[in-house]
Amino acid sequence: MPAKIMLVICDGLGDRPIKDIGFRTPLEASRKPSMDFIAANGVCGIMDPIAPGVRPGSAPAHLAIFGYNPYEYYKGRGVFEALGIGIDVKPGDLTFRVNLATVDDNLMVVDRRAGRIGGDDSRILFQLLDEELRIPGVELRFYPGVEHRGVLVIRGEGLSWMVSDTDPERDGAPILVCKPLDGSVEAKRTAELVNRISMDAYRILSKADVNRRRVSEGKLQANALLIRGASFYEPIPRVTERYGLKACCIAGGPLYKGVARYVGMDVIDVKGATGTYESDFKAKVEACIKALESYDLIYLHFKATDLAGEDGNYRRKIEVIERIDDALYMIIDKVEDYVITLTADHSTPCSIRTHSADPVPIAIAGPDVRVDDIGRFEERACSKGGLGRIRGLDLMPILLDIVNLTHKYGA
Amino acid sequence: MPAKIMLVICDGLGDRPIKDIGFRTPLEASRKPSMDFIAANGVCGIMDPIAPGVRPGSAPAHLAIFGYNPYEYYKGRGVFEALGIGIDVKPGDLTFRVNLATVDDNLMVVDRRAGRIGGDDSRILFQLLDEELRIPGVELRFYPGVEHRGVLVIRGEGLSWMVSDTDPERDGAPILVCKPLDGSVEAKRTAELVNRISMDAYRILSKADVNRRRVSEGKLQANALLIRGASFYEPIPRVTERYGLKACCIAGGPLYKGVARYVGMDVIDVKGATGTYESDFKAKVEACIKALESYDLIYLHFKATDLAGEDGNYRRKIEVIERIDDALYMIIDKVEDYVITLTADHSTPCSIRTHSADPVPIAIAGPDVRVDDIGRFEERACSKGGLGRIRGLDLMPILLDIVNLTHKYGA
Repeated sequence: MPAKIMLVICDGLGDRPIKDIGFRTPLEASRKPSMDFIAANGVCGIMDPIAPGVRPGSAPAHLAIFGYNPYEYYKGRGVFEALGIGIDVKPGDLTFRVNLATVDDNLMVVDRRAGRIGGDDSRILFQLLDEELRIPGVELRFYPGVEHRGVLVIRGEGLSWMVSDTDPERDGAPILVCKPLDGSVEAKRTAELVNRISMDAYRILSKADVNRRRVSEGKLQANALLIRGASFYEPIPRVTERYGLKACCIAGGPLYKGVARYVGMDVIDVKGATGTYESDFKAKVEACIKALESYDLIYLHFKATDLAGEDGNYRRKIEVIERIDDALYMIIDKVEDYVITLTADHSTPCSIRTHSADPVPIAIAGPDVRVDDIGRFEERACSKGGLGRIRGLDLMPILLDIVNLTHKYGA
Repeated sequence: MPAKIMLVICDGLGDRPIKDIGFRTPLEASRKPSMDFIAANGVCGIMDPIAPGVRPGSAPAHLAIFGYNPYEYYKGRGVFEALGIGIDVKPGDLTFRVNLATVDDNLMVVDRRAGRIGGDDSRILFQLLDEELRIPGVELRFYPGVEHRGVLVIRGEGLSWMVSDTDPERDGAPILVCKPLDGSVEAKRTAELVNRISMDAYRILSKADVNRRRVSEGKLQANALLIRGASFYEPIPRVTERYGLKACCIAGGPLYKGVARYVGMDVIDVKGATGTYESDFKAKVEACIKALESYDLIYLHFKATDLAGEDGNYRRKIEVIERIDDALYMIIDKVEDYVITLTADHSTPCSIRTHSADPVPIAIAGPDVRVDDIGRFEERACSKGGLGRIRGLDLMPILLDIVNLTHKYGA
């Protein structure tokens, strides 16, 4: 049998015990026969995506799980969004995530998402910025993303990603001044540049026809840009070269596609894969099965578990888990021939509505695996499994060894 | 609820199976309902204070448990004793633990503790050394400690803590020559300095009135100084700054107070807390409950378990465990609101009468904890718990994450 690995990541899946459901976690309270089947036919454990007690952001957690030490390879989030929406990022590019936002005359943020502007309005405004916002000495590019989101790329010499965000992260606060985060000349210069872009964008967007029309229609205008997630791009070794595996990604959210592209995976676009609650889970699993024909490592990502955690809605988290489980039913028979790994990139407990460092459950099923006696894919059940407690960076080496793609160290 | 953490450390608690009690450890053979309650209401595991197979000294083990990498922050033991007895140690000070000892005319040690001299006699002799022992180029200070113990501080340029002890660690052996432990000029100079102090101390102490009187009373004279635990002091980041927690220490032994002061904890003196078998455990637990009013992190230390291990007395170890358990009964209801962590700094098996690297049991109880199915706070029972096997350095990050004081790494 060819060495093929499916890596299924349910974002933010891990949780903490919730009183209202008998001190169980959403995973423990779900009906999830497919996930349990994978656990029962696999070796289970718990995993610290980064390290015990380290609360992982999604991008560094994914890098670690893909075998890339985030402390070496993570240089800000913007580049992942940029790669995720398909921008041809060049080595040395400084990238940012940007929001179209609504501010009042005092530059106080009224709506961080300009009424979730999107479609043509958003596209036209980003194009306007792309054409009109010029600063000597650097090249600026603006790209629309999903809804109010977009990407800013700054190309030039002497730039740094060590600068703070202008996004206050809440409505009712002023646009922040971008500040250097280290003592370098580059960070100082970049911060000045970002502040100038911030003001020029306000000037350009305020006069845009689109906004005049939106105001007349009673809509929020998108008269400002919130800039965040400064990120420096340089190419890194690709999974294909590192592991000798042809790899692809099936995901909805741009961030996850971006991390996959960053490590050199192909991105397979699936109709209906949106990275939202409404995402077509079954279409993604079908694409995953199809991808087995031409890929060795298939990374399949589900975002909605994390969304439910961030919404603090454990009922919805259970419902999402059960829908994912339903879709995964299509692949469970593959454990006879292939390695199926089921895990999460971090916990997002409903009680705290954000990421936590609680370890995530992991199950590795497939031929040649030391199947243990754990039959429930749950945080606490898996903690008693044969894998013990591992770290995200351990996962790829373990998987590669199971499919005999590792090489002997020494003689 | 405020984020408050109690960290209860029973020194040297871990042990090895003992044939005379049915191959159980003292902990396994104890009646300890309070400890078992904490285990039952918590997530359990085993912990290597430093790393698997590394036999921890108490000071490095405590540093690791407090989140300070001992390989970076541990620079000898003397400073902890000095801080523990309240000496105002200055940055750059070279500190040593010293013993008043009895030697014969050939400088052979007759009693390493000079008959456990203490009280006024000890105080007067240390004062004599402080006044009379002078060496050009450095400032020397002598301070009395508990019983025969004291502290020597050397202040000056070009000193090193890389020097060996003059203490032979047994009676009937000669005072050792202090030797440099690396090739530096500083270590060489410091070793020469220590040897000169060693000889000058003998000269001064031999002529002391106190000793003449002691001899006439048939007591052992304290005519020599044994010098050990060279240690270099420089201030390190305080727990308050690192973790945003106001922290305090409740302990009897100077070493533990010293480590606590070293990491910036306040030390709460409790009447009857002596760091001995006779220590008032209940008074310490009462102080711990009171400290909850004004502190976020309360480190509570019990020494007697280690003493019993070093005495090789498993019956006494069981008795001590049961007395501690009895005192801990007062805090068990706090698990509803606060995080209670119960563990040890290392194992001190009765069979070997010294520290071992056997991992120690750990239980973390409190709200939001993934309570597992372990109900016995014991070495082997805890090894099957939901925490798995962690390291001392993992503990603080895990605790901080449980109380949501960690920050997301990356986005």
